[in-house]
Amino acid sequence: MTPETLRSLLDDIAAGRVTADDAMRRLRDLPYADLGFAKVDLHRALRAGGAEAVFCSGKTPAQVVAILERLIVDHVNVLATRADDAVAAAVAAAGLPHAWHPGARLIVARPEARDGVGLIVVAAAGTADLPVAEEAALVAEALGNRVERVTDCGVAGLHRLLAHRELLAEANVIVAVAGMEGAMPSVIAGFVDRPVIAVPTSVGYGTSLNGLAALLAMLNSCAPGVSVVNIDNGYGAAHQASQINQLVAKIR
Amino acid sequence: MTPETLRSLLDDIAAGRVTADDAMRRLRDLPYADLGFAKVDLHRALRAGGAEAVFCSGKTPAQVVAILERLIVDHVNVLATRADDAVAAAVAAAGLPHAWHPGARLIVARPEARDGVGLIVVAAAGTADLPVAEEAALVAEALGNRVERVTDCGVAGLHRLLAHRELLAEANVIVAVAGMEGAMPSVIAGFVDRPVIAVPTSVGYGTSLNGLAALLAMLNSCAPGVSVVNIDNGYGAAHQASQINQLVAKIR
Amino acid sequence: MTPETLRSLLDDIAAGRVTADDAMRRLRDLPYADLGFAKVDLHRALRAGGAEAVFCSGKTPAQVVAILERLIVDHVNVLATRADDAVAAAVAAAGLPHAWHPGARLIVARPEARDGVGLIVVAAAGTADLPVAEEAALVAEALGNRVERVTDCGVAGLHRLLAHRELLAEANVIVAVAGMEGAMPSVIAGFVDRPVIAVPTSVGYGTSLNGLAALLAMLNSCAPGVSVVNIDNGYGAAHQASQINQLVAKIR
Amino acid sequence: MTPETLRSLLDDIAAGRVTADDAMRRLRDLPYADLGFAKVDLHRALRAGGAEAVFCSGKTPAQVVAILERLIVDHVNVLATRADDAVAAAVAAAGLPHAWHPGARLIVARPEARDGVGLIVVAAAGTADLPVAEEAALVAEALGNRVERVTDCGVAGLHRLLAHRELLAEANVIVAVAGMEGAMPSVIAGFVDRPVIAVPTSVGYGTSLNGLAALLAMLNSCAPGVSVVNIDNGYGAAHQASQINQLVAKIR
Amino acid sequence: MTPETLRSLLDDIAAGRVTADDAMRRLRDLPYADLGFAKVDLHRALRAGGAEAVFCSGKTPAQVVAILERLIVDHVNVLATRADDAVAAAVAAAGLPHAWHPGARLIVARPEARDGVGLIVVAAAGTADLPVAEEAALVAEALGNRVERVTDCGVAGLHRLLAHRELLAEANVIVAVAGMEGAMPSVIAGFVDRPVIAVPTSVGYGTSLNGLAALLAMLNSCAPGVSVVNIDNGYGAAHQASQINQLVAKIR
Amino acid sequence: MTPETLRSLLDDIAAGRVTADDAMRRLRDLPYADLGFAKVDLHRALRAGGAEAVFCSGKTPAQVVAILERLIVDHVNVLATRADDAVAAAVAAAGLPHAWHPGARLIVARPEARDGVGLIVVAAAGTADLPVAEEAALVAEALGNRVERVTDCGVAGLHRLLAHRELLAEANVIVAVAGMEGAMPSVIAGFVDRPVIAVPTSVGYGTSLNGLAALLAMLNSCAPGVSVVNIDNGYGAAHQASQINQLVAKIR
Amino acid sequence: MTPETLRSLLDDIAAGRVTADDAMRRLRDLPYADLGFAKVDLHRALRAGGAEAVFCSGKTPAQVVAILERLIVDHVNVLATRADDAVAAAVAAAGLPHAWHPGARLIVARPEARDGVGLIVVAAAGTADLPVAEEAALVAEALGNRVERVTDCGVAGLHRLLAHRELLAEANVIVAVAGMEGAMPSVIAGFVDRPVIAVPTSVGYGTSLNGLAALLAMLNSCAPGVSVVNIDNGYGAAHQASQINQLVAKIR
Amino acid sequence: MTPETLRSLLDDIAAGRVTADDAMRRLRDLPYADLGFAKVDLHRALRAGGAEAVFCSGKTPAQVVAILERLIVDHVNVLATRADDAVAAAVAAAGLPHAWHPGARLIVARPEARDGVGLIVVAAAGTADLPVAEEAALVAEALGNRVERVTDCGVAGLHRLLAHRELLAEANVIVAVAGMEGAMPSVIAGFVDRPVIAVPTSVGYGTSLNGLAALLAMLNSCAPGVSVVNIDNGYGAAHQASQINQLVAKIR
Repeated sequence: MTPETLRSLLDDIAAGRVTADDAMRRLRDLPYADLGFAKVDLHRALRAGGAEAVFCSGKTPAQVVAILERLIVDHVNVLATRADDAVAAAVAAAGLPHAWHPGARLIVARPEARDGVGLIVVAAAGTADLPVAEEAALVAEALGNRVERVTDCGVAGLHRLLAHRELLAEANVIVAVAGMEGAMPSVIAGFVDRPVIAVPTSVGYGTSLNGLAALLAMLNSCAPGVSVVNIDNGYGAAHQASQINQLVAKIR
Repeated sequence: MTPETLRSLLDDIAAGRVTADDAMRRLRDLPYADLGFAKVDLHRALRAGGAEAVFCSGKTPAQVVAILERLIVDHVNVLATRADDAVAAAVAAAGLPHAWHPGARLIVARPEARDGVGLIVVAAAGTADLPVAEEAALVAEALGNRVERVTDCGVAGLHRLLAHRELLAEANVIVAVAGMEGAMPSVIAGFVDRPVIAVPTSVGYGTSLNGLAALLAMLNSCAPGVSVVNIDNGYGAAHQASQINQLVAKIR
Repeated sequence: MTPETLRSLLDDIAAGRVTADDAMRRLRDLPYADLGFAKVDLHRALRAGGAEAVFCSGKTPAQVVAILERLIVDHVNVLATRADDAVAAAVAAAGLPHAWHPGARLIVARPEARDGVGLIVVAAAGTADLPVAEEAALVAEALGNRVERVTDCGVAGLHRLLAHRELLAEANVIVAVAGMEGAMPSVIAGFVDRPVIAVPTSVGYGTSLNGLAALLAMLNSCAPGVSVVNIDNGYGAAHQASQINQLVAKIR
Repeated sequence: MTPETLRSLLDDIAAGRVTADDAMRRLRDLPYADLGFAKVDLHRALRAGGAEAVFCSGKTPAQVVAILERLIVDHVNVLATRADDAVAAAVAAAGLPHAWHPGARLIVARPEARDGVGLIVVAAAGTADLPVAEEAALVAEALGNRVERVTDCGVAGLHRLLAHRELLAEANVIVAVAGMEGAMPSVIAGFVDRPVIAVPTSVGYGTSLNGLAALLAMLNSCAPGVSVVNIDNGYGAAHQASQINQLVAKIR
Repeated sequence: MTPETLRSLLDDIAAGRVTADDAMRRLRDLPYADLGFAKVDLHRALRAGGAEAVFCSGKTPAQVVAILERLIVDHVNVLATRADDAVAAAVAAAGLPHAWHPGARLIVARPEARDGVGLIVVAAAGTADLPVAEEAALVAEALGNRVERVTDCGVAGLHRLLAHRELLAEANVIVAVAGMEGAMPSVIAGFVDRPVIAVPTSVGYGTSLNGLAALLAMLNSCAPGVSVVNIDNGYGAAHQASQINQLVAKIR
Repeated sequence: MTPETLRSLLDDIAAGRVTADDAMRRLRDLPYADLGFAKVDLHRALRAGGAEAVFCSGKTPAQVVAILERLIVDHVNVLATRADDAVAAAVAAAGLPHAWHPGARLIVARPEARDGVGLIVVAAAGTADLPVAEEAALVAEALGNRVERVTDCGVAGLHRLLAHRELLAEANVIVAVAGMEGAMPSVIAGFVDRPVIAVPTSVGYGTSLNGLAALLAMLNSCAPGVSVVNIDNGYGAAHQASQINQLVAKIR
Repeated sequence: MTPETLRSLLDDIAAGRVTADDAMRRLRDLPYADLGFAKVDLHRALRAGGAEAVFCSGKTPAQVVAILERLIVDHVNVLATRADDAVAAAVAAAGLPHAWHPGARLIVARPEARDGVGLIVVAAAGTADLPVAEEAALVAEALGNRVERVTDCGVAGLHRLLAHRELLAEANVIVAVAGMEGAMPSVIAGFVDRPVIAVPTSVGYGTSLNGLAALLAMLNSCAPGVSVVNIDNGYGAAHQASQINQLVAKIR
Repeated sequence: MTPETLRSLLDDIAAGRVTADDAMRRLRDLPYADLGFAKVDLHRALRAGGAEAVFCSGKTPAQVVAILERLIVDHVNVLATRADDAVAAAVAAAGLPHAWHPGARLIVARPEARDGVGLIVVAAAGTADLPVAEEAALVAEALGNRVERVTDCGVAGLHRLLAHRELLAEANVIVAVAGMEGAMPSVIAGFVDRPVIAVPTSVGYGTSLNGLAALLAMLNSCAPGVSVVNIDNGYGAAHQASQINQLVAKIR
């Protein structure tokens, strides 16, 4: 409820076009309806081409199917992240239109191709980081962004990264995915003046502490322009990258 | 050096317009000169109105003064972060033109007021988070952005936060500063579809673990659209927020 | 043994009504029998309608069966928590009267329905938190409390939580179950003046550190009125909530 | 704003007693005023005899004074926690009526003695835990509860604790304060069927890890009925204990 | 080589009974042979009835069999700890005389019953701690000590522990095994003036952190007289308890 | 109160030699006095020459003085650990007979020299470990044990340690004090078959983590026979060593 | 590309022996080729007999096969570390010439025996450390170094280590592999003046924290001359040891 | 004692030139004297030009002076690390010949300039890392190595690092000093085939965790050829670098 609709309602009461009882009923949910949360959610979907993503971990395949069935009524490109084989099988068995990306553990329900706007570059430091990077790239594409992938460009082979610096400089936002020592985002931020969203991955062993080493390195980047999301959170990075890219592209 | 200028140089050699010796000299620095690092840095300064920020911790006041003296030759609004009283005294004694913000521990050398573009909202959860929030706000302003401050709006007084949701929804990017349980950025991202850069602060005690509790909460936000910087890193958040805001405002 | 009964015994000795030998015998176990531990346990069972709960982890199914068999002689609604399929199968094979709640990993042996007193609200932030929340709700019901469940009301969809604030304000105590960033208990405590027992869950990944992130957030709640139990400890929260609710309802 | 006052306002508009403009002005803040947050706060103050507590850490003495000055207009027994000497001096210099408890680092502004209801027992394991225990006891008293103190009763001298078990069993809620190995709350919960709010303290050295050892012990209590607050958080424990005690005593 | 045998060798050289060449050969290994390490090991075996224990984790069943085969030539009651089913099967298949205690994951090769000296009490806080406690008790028995077991005596049922205080006071050393909050060793040390070797177990969940919570509690015992071994290290506790008990019993 | 004195008291009442009132007064503390806690404490003091030690941290100098004044009425060699200059000054100002060991931060109140029994060897790895080692040695001496000190024998100079192996082998128990990598106790346990109580110290920097590195090393000793106390806890190690040594020497 | 070959290319263009087009093609990769990264890699391969090692974790068997197929075109003794059975089966099925060391999880593709230069000693503390030590030894051999193995020489049996001190003193570099308390490298560095590269292993349990205890011990070595690599990183230690050994042997 | 001197002693006994008694006396210390620890130390000093370094932390100034006075009798360039102002003042007051480097907290007692052999490059990522880097460089010089310094070359300004790659490639060993995200050593190892000894520094704040973030990054380097020493341990890195450099230069 906007100030305008509230004012209009009040005028209607004053004019006797609406009774106090009816107004009471409409205003009863005001505390949160007027907060516009659901409305905001709706707007987001219309604008960005997707509903809230479904995080599959901890949900049964049947729960995921039920949620997706409800969401694809109103939305296309509905995302289900961390979808394992059992979830994918259930979605397929339920006959839902969908695309299944097992490497990225991602299901796009009621998929619909769309021209991407702007440019998001998704850079992966190593081959083992590809599943997370691919989740980010696929999510960004499903949300309507142009995406370029740069792979196998960790700091042990810096020249491979430097070879892509023009592409990186052209991006509105860079999603930088790295495990182990997690240095790549810092290096990118050191030579490209674009916002870098760093995604630490759990790639590594021993003192990688399942990605904490990479996370800490990224948070301590000596180059400004780096912010960080949770370990292996390709979806989250892509979501924020899409917010930024579409603001720049004047979509939202 | 772009491919075009390289091709042109090669043509010049082939045509005898440039000797191999001269070409050798120009190509000698290619490995890094052509990387354009310094040039990029220069461009960043011209565009964004500021040089690299000086992180004062671990530097002597004399070192800070010397660096600032060199930087203000070419730049205005040169930032010195984590500047304590001793640094401020040294800068003043050296006669450098500057503004000193003790609460934010920030010095702006050769300060120059500028109209800010776009909109960055800096939200602080509590009074004790203000020094970090103020660092972020002052840095963002020095970098040429329009900044609005929202204070004392932590989740214990949610209504104060909700009162500002229109301002928050209008921002190109939100810097959300919170200590203790660090929940505010999640809540903001839950009702505003704008990128949120979360800054955990070391405000708290005991299990706040000097800000780690807030950091972890922010990294685990159940609302997408949140990325995180280091604890108390108001500068870093403002830098990235400025990158984003100015891309949207078509400054860079 | 109260001071009064002790004084009475001493008088009896002085008066020759009790011999020193008999007094010696009665006083020998005083150090602990008079502490009344077993008696207290018995009183607790009579009052609260349940025996000590059996924590199944680390016990063999046979051990669990044996303990339950002994407890249901004197008690109804005997709880076995963290009961997996093997335990449930053994309990069934042994022919014990029981109800088995696999989602909540809970067995109620010799179950007996009872009208609940007072009101405990069990709120779950997300679908994945439901097993722990359900453990809490079922335990609270088995202990004789009226329980209302509020689900899927995490801070990413704050309006869903706010919609229940009247119910929350009516509760004698609220059990708030959340994983990931664990912000929901703080938000509830921010707008309802009732004791909140927060249960962090291991829902999440990466920096959720198996629930430590949620735990830390809850311990650092900026809103007073929140206390915390162990990660995934739905039983423990329900036990204390029951103590409180029944004190208010004047049951104990 | 209650449903009744909202209904009354709507009736006034319908009846022409209030213009739409005036109603608009009053309803402008509705989204959060109607959430009743401020109102709840007000009710809490009226009922419990105190306003929101002021957490002094990270605030300047001047800020604390200003906040207290505003709060004591409407409230008595306004609490300022973690108040150090500088804060106390500033409060005294400002001429505010107050009581200063340096051991507990607590200021009670506009103090007003009151008869306490119900019973909260505050138990401290050792002499070094007394400052935190005293903060809890003083806060609980300021909030209008009857408080009994039990001191120096850690598990190394178990008999001292057992000597108080009748008092403990009589309490509506027990605040158990302990550092080092933090075992006392578990022991209390093992022989008294009352809710125990455990407060770990930073008393100890080495592997006490500034109170983390005690915190972990308390969270892992093998006796049910224990919940935990932040390290050294005597205020928080007292606040929740007061909520519980007053519910039992039918104050709120 | 003892000082006596060295002196004797030197005399033999001086007397010409041994050539310098032969002496050289015998003394070549002196730097470490004379350190007496192997000899000490041998003495230990003769005195205590057992050889070095074999830690099976990380060894193949074949390796364990080979080591045991060699050790039982000279020793009885050779211990193999952390022996899983595969190791036990291999030892059985190899035809080695042995006793297999699957709960304690312990194999005693070439077992030989012996009267135990002195008294070691092994106390376990809960049923789930029994495997570790049983490892300790069996090891202590195999090493020739009299052992008494006290079980299910955690602090949640303190009276069960207190019931055994005379037995505890009689022990030369107490091995106290506990998981979860790990409080039992402190409580024992609080009322019995005997050395307590505490064994934290990995029993628990969530913030038990696989036994770290119990370990920290034990290290921070407010009662003196407690020392601690590694988590789940029943063998190590029994070994040191045996050293102490046999010194008291004048065996070594 | 022993069973004998209790019986005797009861007989006295029966015989009229003691009135019920007087008995009541004496038995008022029975619930715990009969637990024998105080008795144990008393016995310990008589045997070992010292009362409970006073841990000064977190106590005011005045509190320490008051406790010591009371304790020295009945005891000699009363220990006050972690005593800083302020405590020592207060004790001196109060005119208490005492010895002050500033390096070890130890006060021995009403000191009385005594011949030590048995043998405890206190070994320190480095010069910086000496304060903790000295605390252990002085405490052990005050408790009536013969103590030998071995210093500067860390594993970087292994020969210095090996030079003392005969002394080490002669000890009833060894207190091994080491910081940094904490390897010395393992090495000692590898060549001497005596119980080793390891004391990690906070000596070191960076990854020593204030002694956690040494602690972990000691807990993971590959040589059996090592148990561990809290970081810098020379007192605790000495206390347990004294228990063991005096059992061997048949003092207790 | 060296300065010489660049100069020569430029001369060729100037002389018309190479067209600008051809030069362009060769120089297109210059920005990074001229950084010499690939060249360095090539030189390393020629000198050391091996290409970049393939880290198999996180790669599919098919990916590993594809990478190895490409690498063995130009290289011998190509290493694939952390190769499990599935990878080994895929490599075998693909018909690649290779040696498979399952214990060390190492594949050497296109293996070629070579005389080793210099001397690297690989010392393992215990039997369970052998897989990591063997990885180090095999890698060092494949890289062309002479390797001697010293096994089962942990500090619990110090004499076994001391027996090898002449061999250790002869080495150009020592790789010291140990789990549990991780003391062996410190001890070696204490009596041999050679660089020691310490490899912590995840051998242990409980507080070994999967190798962190050993890692911390090694980083805190009181003996200088120790540096450390990641937990279980036998490959990394061997790689650096090979760099050092071959510099001494004047190979690189 | 070398094999030769032992053989000679045995011959002397056989020949009657030495009595068995005298030989006994000389051999009594053999177990460790023959280990040659002290001799090795002596050899190290003669070869490398320096005695054992004195670690000043935890030692009193007087202790440091006493140790230095003894060491400079036989040695030049005796190092005292972590020397603060008080230590330096005491050394000066004692009249010892010395050089005092306050930035590096290093004293070189009885300093003697020497030509350095080989080449060690000490690279520092930032200005704040200079004290640690300078400690490394000065130590390496005092130990007789040629040292080149490369400063302010962190990954945020990668071109500054790349500008020095020829110098880096020329080094026998590189000491790479970095705080914050600690990426520089990985980057160096990625383009230079020389052993890199990485020194994490405590430079940073928040999640740098006093250098742990940099340490973890270095341990997880995706480029092989990096080993790591303790945080801020410039001395340790220089010591090992010197060992390596002098082996290459054939000094030891």
